[in-house]
Amino acid sequence: MLDQSTICAISTSPGVGAIAVIRLSGSDAIAICDKVYESPKTGKSLADQAANTLHFGKIVSANETIDEVVVALFRAPHSFTGEDIIEISCHGSVYIQQRILNVLVENGARLALPGEFTQRAFLNGKMDLSQAEAVADVIASSNAAAHKLAMNQMRGGFSKEIGSLRDQLLHFTAMVELELDFSEEDVEFADRTALRKLTEEIEALLRKLKDSFQLGNAIKNGIPVAIVGETNVGKSTLLNALLNEDRAIVSDIHGTTRDVIEDVVNIRGTAFRFFDTAGIRETEDQIETLGIERSYSKLEQATVVLLVVDTNNPYPLVESRIQHIRERIAPHQTLIIVANKIDSGLRDTIQQIEVMELTDNEKAVFIAAKQKENLEELIDYMSHSINLEEAEQQDVIVTNARHYEILKNAHEAIFRVLNGLDMQITGDFLAQDIRECLHYLAEITGEVGTEEVLGHIFKNFCIGK
Amino acid sequence: MLDQSTICAISTSPGVGAIAVIRLSGSDAIAICDKVYESPKTGKSLADQAANTLHFGKIVSANETIDEVVVALFRAPHSFTGEDIIEISCHGSVYIQQRILNVLVENGARLALPGEFTQRAFLNGKMDLSQAEAVADVIASSNAAAHKLAMNQMRGGFSKEIGSLRDQLLHFTAMVELELDFSEEDVEFADRTALRKLTEEIEALLRKLKDSFQLGNAIKNGIPVAIVGETNVGKSTLLNALLNEDRAIVSDIHGTTRDVIEDVVNIRGTAFRFFDTAGIRETEDQIETLGIERSYSKLEQATVVLLVVDTNNPYPLVESRIQHIRERIAPHQTLIIVANKIDSGLRDTIQQIEVMELTDNEKAVFIAAKQKENLEELIDYMSHSINLEEAEQQDVIVTNARHYEILKNAHEAIFRVLNGLDMQITGDFLAQDIRECLHYLAEITGEVGTEEVLGHIFKNFCIGK
Repeated sequence: MLDQSTICAISTSPGVGAIAVIRLSGSDAIAICDKVYESPKTGKSLADQAANTLHFGKIVSANETIDEVVVALFRAPHSFTGEDIIEISCHGSVYIQQRILNVLVENGARLALPGEFTQRAFLNGKMDLSQAEAVADVIASSNAAAHKLAMNQMRGGFSKEIGSLRDQLLHFTAMVELELDFSEEDVEFADRTALRKLTEEIEALLRKLKDSFQLGNAIKNGIPVAIVGETNVGKSTLLNALLNEDRAIVSDIHGTTRDVIEDVVNIRGTAFRFFDTAGIRETEDQIETLGIERSYSKLEQATVVLLVVDTNNPYPLVESRIQHIRERIAPHQTLIIVANKIDSGLRDTIQQIEVMELTDNEKAVFIAAKQKENLEELIDYMSHSINLEEAEQQDVIVTNARHYEILKNAHEAIFRVLNGLDMQITGDFLAQDIRECLHYLAEITGEVGTEEVLGHIFKNFCIGK
Repeated sequence: MLDQSTICAISTSPGVGAIAVIRLSGSDAIAICDKVYESPKTGKSLADQAANTLHFGKIVSANETIDEVVVALFRAPHSFTGEDIIEISCHGSVYIQQRILNVLVENGARLALPGEFTQRAFLNGKMDLSQAEAVADVIASSNAAAHKLAMNQMRGGFSKEIGSLRDQLLHFTAMVELELDFSEEDVEFADRTALRKLTEEIEALLRKLKDSFQLGNAIKNGIPVAIVGETNVGKSTLLNALLNEDRAIVSDIHGTTRDVIEDVVNIRGTAFRFFDTAGIRETEDQIETLGIERSYSKLEQATVVLLVVDTNNPYPLVESRIQHIRERIAPHQTLIIVANKIDSGLRDTIQQIEVMELTDNEKAVFIAAKQKENLEELIDYMSHSINLEEAEQQDVIVTNARHYEILKNAHEAIFRVLNGLDMQITGDFLAQDIRECLHYLAEITGEVGTEEVLGHIFKNFCIGK
């Protein structure tokens, strides 16, 4: 049933480099390459060479040498895809890359779809689905924390956690089904207290995984930050000052669906995602309108809300602004009151803000955005809004929106089991919910799944992986 | 004397790809990689592995796995540089690439300079200097003809030609020096007629090589095209119509020094270099001023001059414009009279241009730039302005400005020999010019040369090659 055709793609970053790598995978990979490859020294064809070896030679088409290359030879099943793989390392001219790709296609290969190499690795049992998904995350990772999470998932950390959950659920089913076998005798092999304890453990584990998504998503896609405040308090100046910290590592994140984002930027190794809250800024005084409500729903997506206030304003005005936003901050969010323009601000306003009573998830910081004064402290507060230490300690953190959706479903199913136990429903109903929960977990690792799901997952990969 | 340090660089195109390749070269390449490489299966170190083999493993730093990689192992002298080479094929995240580069540097490698791998290949005798220079041209080649020339040069075609020239010169020297040995006896072993014939052959060969540079440079850097004409005749419209033909393959050419260029674009496989002649356009009526002369000197750099005229103007006006430019066209240039706006033009003007008498290097073409009418014919004329068939037939075409300068000097030296023969100067003076000529040729292949020359050549390479 598996697609046995031989696929090819340029696997290195597009554009001119010193070298580029073109990858071929499939049952005819070696034969196709042999049609265009010439070994000037040995004259041997690649088919006669051992696995995991390197060969210098030429790629030739119609007696013209397209390039001198080094060919890497991998044989099934000991390769990334589990199939025969040829990797052609050529000079990095775009022209040469295209020419070589063309002659491979002329000789029977077809162009690979995005992620098709990884998809084959999954279909050939080289990795489970969550590991395959992590490959894209590894490639997209642009900071230490995101890289660590993706590497852990790719190397099977998440799969192990899911496996342990499955084991517990199977233990549960076994207990319940034993009971069913003896149902007419009205015994309870599965001691309800033990059963309840096990269910609670599973529920707690699922909840922990599910809840880790907020952190995981912040690490993977950047901590969502909203900058709010009235006109002319210095929001744009602040944003620019923060963005200028390190624009070089701003990266385009593949494989994630998200709203329009203004800027993703790495500041001292942590990714922040600044998003547009223009609506709030401009129409703050007409809070009853529908448009405003939509803007506030964006505020809800932020992990960190930077409320910029101008210390040139009298304190009562500033206080009313703070109060206004405060009411809309949820307990899991961090509100940072950014008292700006301290170089020229009113002494009274600054002092009053300094002595303001703050809740646990509130901070106040005094800066001069234009002069880039005290931005360090602000960045510290922003970075601490997510608990990176927690990420260090926790084995597995969910970073994938698909996994999160599935875990929510699995968690609901296990919650029904808990309720069922409370309501003393019969074992067969309990078993049904457990099976549903097991089914969901199998979707994460890809043991069950549809073509459609696979297509959706791999289409967000880059070509050549 | 050679720098034995181990160098490293990212050799694939910068940016995110499915995979990236990091290259290490030098006597410690294998040892340095072994410090950060772990083989999960065999546990073997790379030092114990055979040459030309591939190894799956992990790059580890302080117990953290940075990535799962495939390591390619080459051993001196059978490698590109002639040194031990390690190529690490990692996931193509910019973060991972940087991390791996960092741990290699931490463990004793240093970052490679641009072109340093190729420079080592030259210093270790893997290729001569003209071949090494061609490596950069191969990487920069963006069309079939440029690619072919660069490949030929990289594979030693040019070196062979230089070698044959050297052989003839040595034969000449041998004849002359034999004469010197017997100078007191006043004999002429070297029959002057034969000597003259040989000198003429060498001169012709050097001249052919030198003259091929115009063609070679046009192929490598694009055919230089100047678009001239009065305001509002449709120059910009024409330029845009031509550029829109195929903007995808516009490429940035490394390793060449040139003036500010407006656009290099591939049209149907041929590169054209359109350059700014704004000066001519705007001040055509004040031809006496200095500024204009500078503009006309730009016109001189063009192989093709497109003179755009508006057929809505009466013929006498058009004719005077044509005459004005005609006077400034050299025999080796092609002047294409582009009669524009034929959709609305005066019938008389069009007819008169049609029957105009044209010289061999003049063409007239009738177009409507806005409607993109008849651009094909214009492009054909432009393409035929250089003789690509000549390029096909000729073994060697000079594409490198450094080689061109040296060949000019060598040609001057041999010209002095010819004059010397005419003036019957003594053999020792002849021998001196011959030696000078030999010295120049050795500069091309790098047998003689200074650090400074090498530094200049390789600094225009990309990093990682």
